[in-house]
Amino acid sequence: MKNNINIAIVGLGQIGIYLYNELNKKKKGIEAKTGKKIKIVAISAKNKNKKRKFKIDKKIFYLNPLTIFKSKKIDILFESIGQSDGISKKIVETALRNKINVITPNKALIAKHGDYLANLAEKNNVNLEFEASVAGGIPILRTIKEGLATNKINKIYGILNGTTNYILTEMEKTNENFDKVLKKAQLLGYAEPGNPKLDLNGFDAFAKIRILSALSFNTKISKSKCIMEGIQNIKLEDIKIASQLGLRVKLLGISKIIDGHLFETVHPCLVSKNTYIGNVNGVMNAVITEGKPVGESVLQGEGAGPGPTSSSLLSDLLSILRGNVKLPFGISFSKRKTIKPFNNDNYVNSLYLRFEVKDKQGVLSLITNRLAKYKISVKRIIQTPDKKNKKATIVIITHKTTEINAKNCLSIFKKNKNILKFPTLIRLYS
Amino acid sequence: MKNNINIAIVGLGQIGIYLYNELNKKKKGIEAKTGKKIKIVAISAKNKNKKRKFKIDKKIFYLNPLTIFKSKKIDILFESIGQSDGISKKIVETALRNKINVITPNKALIAKHGDYLANLAEKNNVNLEFEASVAGGIPILRTIKEGLATNKINKIYGILNGTTNYILTEMEKTNENFDKVLKKAQLLGYAEPGNPKLDLNGFDAFAKIRILSALSFNTKISKSKCIMEGIQNIKLEDIKIASQLGLRVKLLGISKIIDGHLFETVHPCLVSKNTYIGNVNGVMNAVITEGKPVGESVLQGEGAGPGPTSSSLLSDLLSILRGNVKLPFGISFSKRKTIKPFNNDNYVNSLYLRFEVKDKQGVLSLITNRLAKYKISVKRIIQTPDKKNKKATIVIITHKTTEINAKNCLSIFKKNKNILKFPTLIRLYS
Repeated sequence: MKNNINIAIVGLGQIGIYLYNELNKKKKGIEAKTGKKIKIVAISAKNKNKKRKFKIDKKIFYLNPLTIFKSKKIDILFESIGQSDGISKKIVETALRNKINVITPNKALIAKHGDYLANLAEKNNVNLEFEASVAGGIPILRTIKEGLATNKINKIYGILNGTTNYILTEMEKTNENFDKVLKKAQLLGYAEPGNPKLDLNGFDAFAKIRILSALSFNTKISKSKCIMEGIQNIKLEDIKIASQLGLRVKLLGISKIIDGHLFETVHPCLVSKNTYIGNVNGVMNAVITEGKPVGESVLQGEGAGPGPTSSSLLSDLLSILRGNVKLPFGISFSKRKTIKPFNNDNYVNSLYLRFEVKDKQGVLSLITNRLAKYKISVKRIIQTPDKKNKKATIVIITHKTTEINAKNCLSIFKKNKNILKFPTLIRLYS
Repeated sequence: MKNNINIAIVGLGQIGIYLYNELNKKKKGIEAKTGKKIKIVAISAKNKNKKRKFKIDKKIFYLNPLTIFKSKKIDILFESIGQSDGISKKIVETALRNKINVITPNKALIAKHGDYLANLAEKNNVNLEFEASVAGGIPILRTIKEGLATNKINKIYGILNGTTNYILTEMEKTNENFDKVLKKAQLLGYAEPGNPKLDLNGFDAFAKIRILSALSFNTKISKSKCIMEGIQNIKLEDIKIASQLGLRVKLLGISKIIDGHLFETVHPCLVSKNTYIGNVNGVMNAVITEGKPVGESVLQGEGAGPGPTSSSLLSDLLSILRGNVKLPFGISFSKRKTIKPFNNDNYVNSLYLRFEVKDKQGVLSLITNRLAKYKISVKRIIQTPDKKNKKATIVIITHKTTEINAKNCLSIFKKNKNILKFPTLIRLYS
């Protein structure tokens, strides 16, 4: 690689603009570490005159990012638009085809088109780096590809979304309900003001789990249908009851190999307050790997925000500036296996079930009989009457059962007049 | 780098022999990830016929490791003898001079001669990698050099010695005294059977802190005199009293920049049971970095044993096989600064002081008056009489004070007939 490196940044939102400023600020340090002089020669965004936190050099501004390649020789391109398709995909494709290295924090793009783009990078002998796409400032991808490279990883899981972890932590701490805490998160910049749906429904964490699986198990990114649940249905009441039981609700992403099959999921879990994962609070992210021979490894850090994201983007930059071309998934496209999906029906968990029922004789036995019929043993029952409203809340913690069995068992409660709402189900982490 | 890579392993103790087996087992996986075929062409140890966990190929055995270079073309040499000088230094020097890449888990060697050897590697344009020298399987060096490369790190600290952490954890859990738990640790292979001194007195953790400092702050390895205390003087009584106060004793290594000066230390600390670091138990290690813009990052994992160590040694191997030459400390020898040491006298802490005194009137006021004279305010006093022996234990938690002030204040208690022993001092982590 030559000594003067031309850089383009496409997308000048919160991440792109912070990166722009960091690159300008850290030029000298980067030169000291790599011997390369970097220069931002092109930037692009939808709006040239938008008010931004840092001033941009308008002389290098392009409205259409695709025209950059025609007028400037680019060595490394940062894509920070963030779409899974559209212009994000187009610009990355075009760059790789033109033998330009690409760095992106775009998890949606990588989770959807990562295999295709990695293959394209490999064919064109350039780098495609995406450390910032998973867990913000935590260098988890590099750790799997390099630090734990020869380990056999069997499981990787963790708290992969800072927005939801903040909301769950804050609800427990302040006793405020979901909607109120969500608004606070939006004001603080922890949740997107317009459409926080992709964080809340688990989609964001799920994209990260897909990427982590592929890296951990040396497989292609899976496309199979999985259990994906967010925190939209977690009520303050559940958090309070869990707390009394010494438990805490966490949105976990989990990926593991079960009998040679890949199981990936994102859903809320009840974890013990005494565990490590139960104490990762606020916007923090944590990723835990179980590998041989290394044992259990934990990485924790700030999972979102322009600072941590920019830290990861710059680590990708240094990796490119320092070394020769690296394979995006640490192993050649042709050597990454495909792996059969685990049958979700057979996923086994203890369950927390919260029923809202009419305060009538026989309702509890209706529930327990139904559970017994499906051989779901009860570990604990807590019944709290609400005499005034002639209602009661029944919380049941069950022993382990499969997804399909629980589903079949609970189906009846959809249309029972004494059961006021379909029961809330939260899996216990085991 | 050519496609067929010749490897030598010098030192076939617990680590070397495990590595030997792992390399043979993982040849194919390594080839898939790097395209390089590795072959162990030379091994060396003091004793050819010692009983070992894995069979060795005696045809490639050398009694004198220095003769290897004359008869074989070596590309990568593993040094796993473990001395800070002597044959360890000699073999690494010779290898680097012969343009052979070196990988070592030898923290004593790197902490003492790391600058000299790194410079030698740089001059000869080969790699010197030592990921396994700090925190076993945790890829902390790579994370600092690459994952957090452009961050400004101000502080790095953690639990860096598994032996002492196991002993402290076990004493609290079982109520057994230091000597008994140490024996158990030796039986389990967590402490060296012959001479566990270097673990217990903080020397091992201190070597690691020196290496971490140099990497975190881009400085030469410091040689200054530091506060280094081990856990030899921690009594079961201290652990019990701490526990009642919601505290736990941990041996921490700490390195930070204070007003542009480097402060490095290893000593037992009292940490709250509610903190993250207070819950890293057993043989686990944890390293916490504070950097900008990334914020706080935590890495936790198994800190010792052949499995985790071998995981790090192989990550170094893959780094060499995959890439071009990397600078041992992530930055050129000539660009690493020297940094003035912080004056240890000005180190500030709250203190836990345990006095064993005669149960006589006036003793408590003697102590408190002395503290008052040195303006050390008392936060908490717990006096426990031992009527039968006419003794009492007085535990005092102080507000913050400097090292020098505490030292001067406590000096008088060396020769007071009512003070039965010089007080035990443990610093509170802040």
